[in-house]
Amino acid sequence: MKMKESISSRLDVVLLSADEQQRRLDRVYAGMAAANISTALVRDNANLYYLTGRVFRGYIYLEAGHAPLYFVRQPTTLHGGDSLHHIRKPEDIAGILVEQGRLTAEASSAHAVPAIELDALSYSDAVRLARVFGSDAPAANLSPILRAARSVKTDEELQALRESGMRQTNVYRRIPRMYREGMSDIELQIEIEYHSRLEGCLGQFRIAGADMELFMGNVLTGENADTPSPYDFAMGGAGIDPSLPVGADGTIIKPGLPVMVDVNGNYTGYMTDMTRCYYITSLESKASEALELSRRICRELAAMMIPGTPAKDLYDRARAIAEEEGMEDYFMGHRSHAGFVGHGVGIEINELPVIAPRSRDVLRAGNVIALEPKFVIPGIGAVGIENTYIVRPEAPGECITLAPEEAVCLN
Amino acid sequence: MKMKESISSRLDVVLLSADEQQRRLDRVYAGMAAANISTALVRDNANLYYLTGRVFRGYIYLEAGHAPLYFVRQPTTLHGGDSLHHIRKPEDIAGILVEQGRLTAEASSAHAVPAIELDALSYSDAVRLARVFGSDAPAANLSPILRAARSVKTDEELQALRESGMRQTNVYRRIPRMYREGMSDIELQIEIEYHSRLEGCLGQFRIAGADMELFMGNVLTGENADTPSPYDFAMGGAGIDPSLPVGADGTIIKPGLPVMVDVNGNYTGYMTDMTRCYYITSLESKASEALELSRRICRELAAMMIPGTPAKDLYDRARAIAEEEGMEDYFMGHRSHAGFVGHGVGIEINELPVIAPRSRDVLRAGNVIALEPKFVIPGIGAVGIENTYIVRPEAPGECITLAPEEAVCLN
Repeated sequence: MKMKESISSRLDVVLLSADEQQRRLDRVYAGMAAANISTALVRDNANLYYLTGRVFRGYIYLEAGHAPLYFVRQPTTLHGGDSLHHIRKPEDIAGILVEQGRLTAEASSAHAVPAIELDALSYSDAVRLARVFGSDAPAANLSPILRAARSVKTDEELQALRESGMRQTNVYRRIPRMYREGMSDIELQIEIEYHSRLEGCLGQFRIAGADMELFMGNVLTGENADTPSPYDFAMGGAGIDPSLPVGADGTIIKPGLPVMVDVNGNYTGYMTDMTRCYYITSLESKASEALELSRRICRELAAMMIPGTPAKDLYDRARAIAEEEGMEDYFMGHRSHAGFVGHGVGIEINELPVIAPRSRDVLRAGNVIALEPKFVIPGIGAVGIENTYIVRPEAPGECITLAPEEAVCLN
Repeated sequence: MKMKESISSRLDVVLLSADEQQRRLDRVYAGMAAANISTALVRDNANLYYLTGRVFRGYIYLEAGHAPLYFVRQPTTLHGGDSLHHIRKPEDIAGILVEQGRLTAEASSAHAVPAIELDALSYSDAVRLARVFGSDAPAANLSPILRAARSVKTDEELQALRESGMRQTNVYRRIPRMYREGMSDIELQIEIEYHSRLEGCLGQFRIAGADMELFMGNVLTGENADTPSPYDFAMGGAGIDPSLPVGADGTIIKPGLPVMVDVNGNYTGYMTDMTRCYYITSLESKASEALELSRRICRELAAMMIPGTPAKDLYDRARAIAEEEGMEDYFMGHRSHAGFVGHGVGIEINELPVIAPRSRDVLRAGNVIALEPKFVIPGIGAVGIENTYIVRPEAPGECITLAPEEAVCLN
């Protein structure tokens, strides 16, 4: 567990080293230049964290060739020298920019409206920000630029991800010790959550998109795995309440049927994503076979992870293998099918690239991708593994979720 | 713990009784009528849950005098008779409305654009929805109407809140048994989280506003309580990682200093909010006195809870009491001060009314309000209680968070 001295005394708005911050800013500036955007205002927590190493309540003003400016509402105690301005409301920003000579007083023209995160800010907040700059409507959308920048991790980000993977692996290795006879899926999940938190898991499960919700993860066993959920995750489950209808539903774990565990790997602000299967007494042979198929798909896809490879090729190959084996009806679900076999991970669980049939993403070195070829077999449940891989100059991808891939007996 | 039969077999899109749904719809229709809005499209998960009793991925189309229509993307297995339409994308909605005679084919005019939740939907999603109806920009904002409707709970909602309060109380009563010598704030919090989950806590902590984040709650002890956070909560704390800088930071619990516990009360989709203080060995007299003051403020404010009372009067009274006692420098924080002493709770933790100096809210019977008069005393920490109250026709408010209010010794 991290100790208090590690952060409570740090009052600088930027916790990244200057070099590391510049590497991240350069990615964003390159994206802005390609889109002909000269200025931008960053507000989304995940993006603030990316560009400073901390979450604060406020904005970063970006303009290539100038140092970033920080407009901070909270905490009121942060430092940042000349580049930090404490504000009470977003309307304060324009006046400060004029004072700093970064905006001309008559610049109440559409030209001066910085790009903002139109996929993350609410309509009301986006329009309010545009009005700060004298426009009735926002100009360019910054969200795709940040999403693209964040999809290629720096070495420091990769280290944070490797650390999350190691600690998540520590927890998964202990899962057999958490089982007690007669347990339900949700009871096992609560034990895994508890041990995850003791290992240092931050709990927070950041997801892009207001309609996506999940608490700590998903543990599925038996038929519940075939209950479709409202969310765009790979797997469903009914959940224990209709206010959050996903995941474990109180099914008692039974001999023969797989228990699929996919629980929060956020130990560093960066999340790894790992799924493993467990069982009591014995595992149905159909489930064992599907698990082996999932492992084979992961291996084959990891071997295809070369910069320049279209993301859709990985999906197509996974699907082709499932079809060759006559498993297409169960691939990525049964009553309802997920439309992807993998996704980028990092500060949020659903980053780029997306490994899907119509994805236009192309793999790049530094992408971090969770592959989760999973099967839902009626009467048996969900089976498969998930690993998180770093795309390197040469294949295969570096796997950073290292718990044994075999199904593990709990009793 | 709820059992699986409770929800997995329920496939109706509406889980509320027809009467209960109508009561909620009537509140929304009244708000629409007052704002001259004839049609609306609901998308936000909290509002979908309010109007159907479940979360799904999709939209509800509202028009006074007609039954609601449900446009569902996921789960694909939901039933709803003639009123439910499975869609693949929002663009499918307009064609179905035309087919149903609810929209004329040439109604690609601004008149036909339904009100949407502009405070909850992203700018990109809001504009995309407006385009479905042939407009470049959204029309009216549905968010304030739903917020007002949800601020006055139905009897069924009040029952869900009472149940959450009872179960949260069960957990708080067990906190002394969770303490072990030498524990840190975060270690105690993890035990409380674990026992909360075993008691049936759903975990999910719904907050309105994209810049608000919290995992399961906040346990503060000692000086950490005086570290301002980026979030608009009553209390701060440094947290254990700069990606989520709020709450417990690993401070070891010491004799004399209060441990303030404010942990997730979401057991039913509706959340109660309760804070209690604990200590080991003994409690500093300054802390005991501040705790008594907090209790007194709660009692006095509960006695003011009569329909028709301006919310700001409660804030003003709380502040006046703090000033009379010479505690204004510590009231609602010390280095940083929260701007409110209470807030509505329900499906989300930050509902109406807001008990703040410039609040224009007026109390109504059926409001559910968390009062949290808290003090941060330098060198000692955070002290105070929080209770959730139902506003009834006659004062005082009904307290539904019933753990003993006195500071409790952990050892």
